[in-house]
Amino acid sequence: MNTIILSLPGNEELSSIIASKLDAPIGRTTIRRFPDGESYIRIHDEVKGKKVVIVCTLHQPNEKLLSLYFLARIAKEQGAKCTCLVAPYLAYMRQDKIFNKGEGLTSKYFSSLVSQFADSIITVDPHLHRIQKLDDIYTVQTEVVHAANHISSWISGNISNPVLVGPDSESEQWVSEVAKNAGVPFMVLEKIRHGDRKVEVSVPDVTLFNDHTPLLIDDIISTARTMIQTVEHLKNAGMKPPVCIGVHAVFADRAYQDLLDSGVEKVITCNTIPHITNAIDLSDLYLDFIRQFNFLKI
Amino acid sequence: MNTIILSLPGNEELSSIIASKLDAPIGRTTIRRFPDGESYIRIHDEVKGKKVVIVCTLHQPNEKLLSLYFLARIAKEQGAKCTCLVAPYLAYMRQDKIFNKGEGLTSKYFSSLVSQFADSIITVDPHLHRIQKLDDIYTVQTEVVHAANHISSWISGNISNPVLVGPDSESEQWVSEVAKNAGVPFMVLEKIRHGDRKVEVSVPDVTLFNDHTPLLIDDIISTARTMIQTVEHLKNAGMKPPVCIGVHAVFADRAYQDLLDSGVEKVITCNTIPHITNAIDLSDLYLDFIRQFNFLKI
Repeated sequence: MNTIILSLPGNEELSSIIASKLDAPIGRTTIRRFPDGESYIRIHDEVKGKKVVIVCTLHQPNEKLLSLYFLARIAKEQGAKCTCLVAPYLAYMRQDKIFNKGEGLTSKYFSSLVSQFADSIITVDPHLHRIQKLDDIYTVQTEVVHAANHISSWISGNISNPVLVGPDSESEQWVSEVAKNAGVPFMVLEKIRHGDRKVEVSVPDVTLFNDHTPLLIDDIISTARTMIQTVEHLKNAGMKPPVCIGVHAVFADRAYQDLLDSGVEKVITCNTIPHITNAIDLSDLYLDFIRQFNFLKI
Repeated sequence: MNTIILSLPGNEELSSIIASKLDAPIGRTTIRRFPDGESYIRIHDEVKGKKVVIVCTLHQPNEKLLSLYFLARIAKEQGAKCTCLVAPYLAYMRQDKIFNKGEGLTSKYFSSLVSQFADSIITVDPHLHRIQKLDDIYTVQTEVVHAANHISSWISGNISNPVLVGPDSESEQWVSEVAKNAGVPFMVLEKIRHGDRKVEVSVPDVTLFNDHTPLLIDDIISTARTMIQTVEHLKNAGMKPPVCIGVHAVFADRAYQDLLDSGVEKVITCNTIPHITNAIDLSDLYLDFIRQFNFLKI
């Protein structure tokens, strides 16, 4: 089946890499806002009978959803055989439980919308905590790929004598895998959360690692509060300025600047969300799924 | 059936008026953004078995849709008997035709989303042009109410010796009705559109009306280009500075300031979109529909 790549605004760089590696064309589109804030979408190239790969990472999802939905519907109405959504960051994965009466399972509501217009979805390390796997909430074919090996390789190639630091117990499984693959030691801290922006962190005895370069690793860097607090604790314990590595560069508000100001050596992220810190390209993780996906939604 | 009003942010004033006239409570909600841009929604009051009236006008729709969708789904999951969406301004009504291959019928795509979570919708003068009636694209119960009588009353009570001016042929039906009800003369201009922001207007001989106060009337004031150009023509023809009346105060970007600067007497709108120009309250138009709607979506 012929493949064509359609890029939502902001995803041009990743789309180019994927197109190049798949030797598939990038379809020409017009995606803009009318003066009143409504979206105008047009696909200029032929998509009939083709596999349409839509590249749209989903941080700040509210503003993007309608354009994405319209683009996918137009592709289908123009005769696309199937749509494959490449969303390296998947939104609304953290609202996976109703803590108080009157709240909603927005992870499920969001997935039910996306499942209406994408025949398949591939994403990187979604925040699977209480929801065990994407198939529990997405009704279309999904594929989860992991950044761990690429991060391990980056560490091996760029940092000498590192020690990996996971900010909380949720990160343990994933930090331990990165550490194992890179053949380096790791430790995991404990986090106690008070509201969206306030967290407490307990740090173990780190004197063993005073000669190492600490690598703080987390899946999502959003407010960066956890990382900044951890940086403080590591500094107080006499460790070197850490290198911070995140898979997903969400960086809410001033978070990136605040993290820089906290005294880190540098900040490195994967290219799941376009950001100046992107240094680890994960695009080859998407290629097999895109090549093999061949499902026509009825 | 018990009724409870839920207001999306920005709709508090209209919600209060409706709640007061229906003698129904406004339900307490938390509707905010997480630092990463995702929506957090919670309904604090009991909605079980109730008719839930959700007030959310839909200008700048892309940013609002997910919060609205989540709120309606939570209401249903909490046992609401039905949801009635009061959306005085309805979005995506102007993209009602595919002009070029590769475009989409976004009015239909948008309506199919909204029809999933609202059991009924009431709106004011939607831009029905090629689509004849809302039922052609909405699959749930819809009600369209008209601002014309309220505008006529406002004119009768506030302007002496007026002449109504419709900016284009699309406005004729609606301007003529306002004029008839107010018992005043009217004329309609011709508009030729070149793209989103550029229009040409042809003006008839207006010397008969040099002693009148011209009232420019349109359903939607968005970029205000049409109105501003009409103001220029009327000024050049020696008429008094006009009063501009719009149903829907969309006012894209600097449109309101530009309209003021063009030399108008004043600008008046209905309260379908909250704006400093709101002077004509349409809320009583919604009450019968809200009271009578009693449909449980299966």
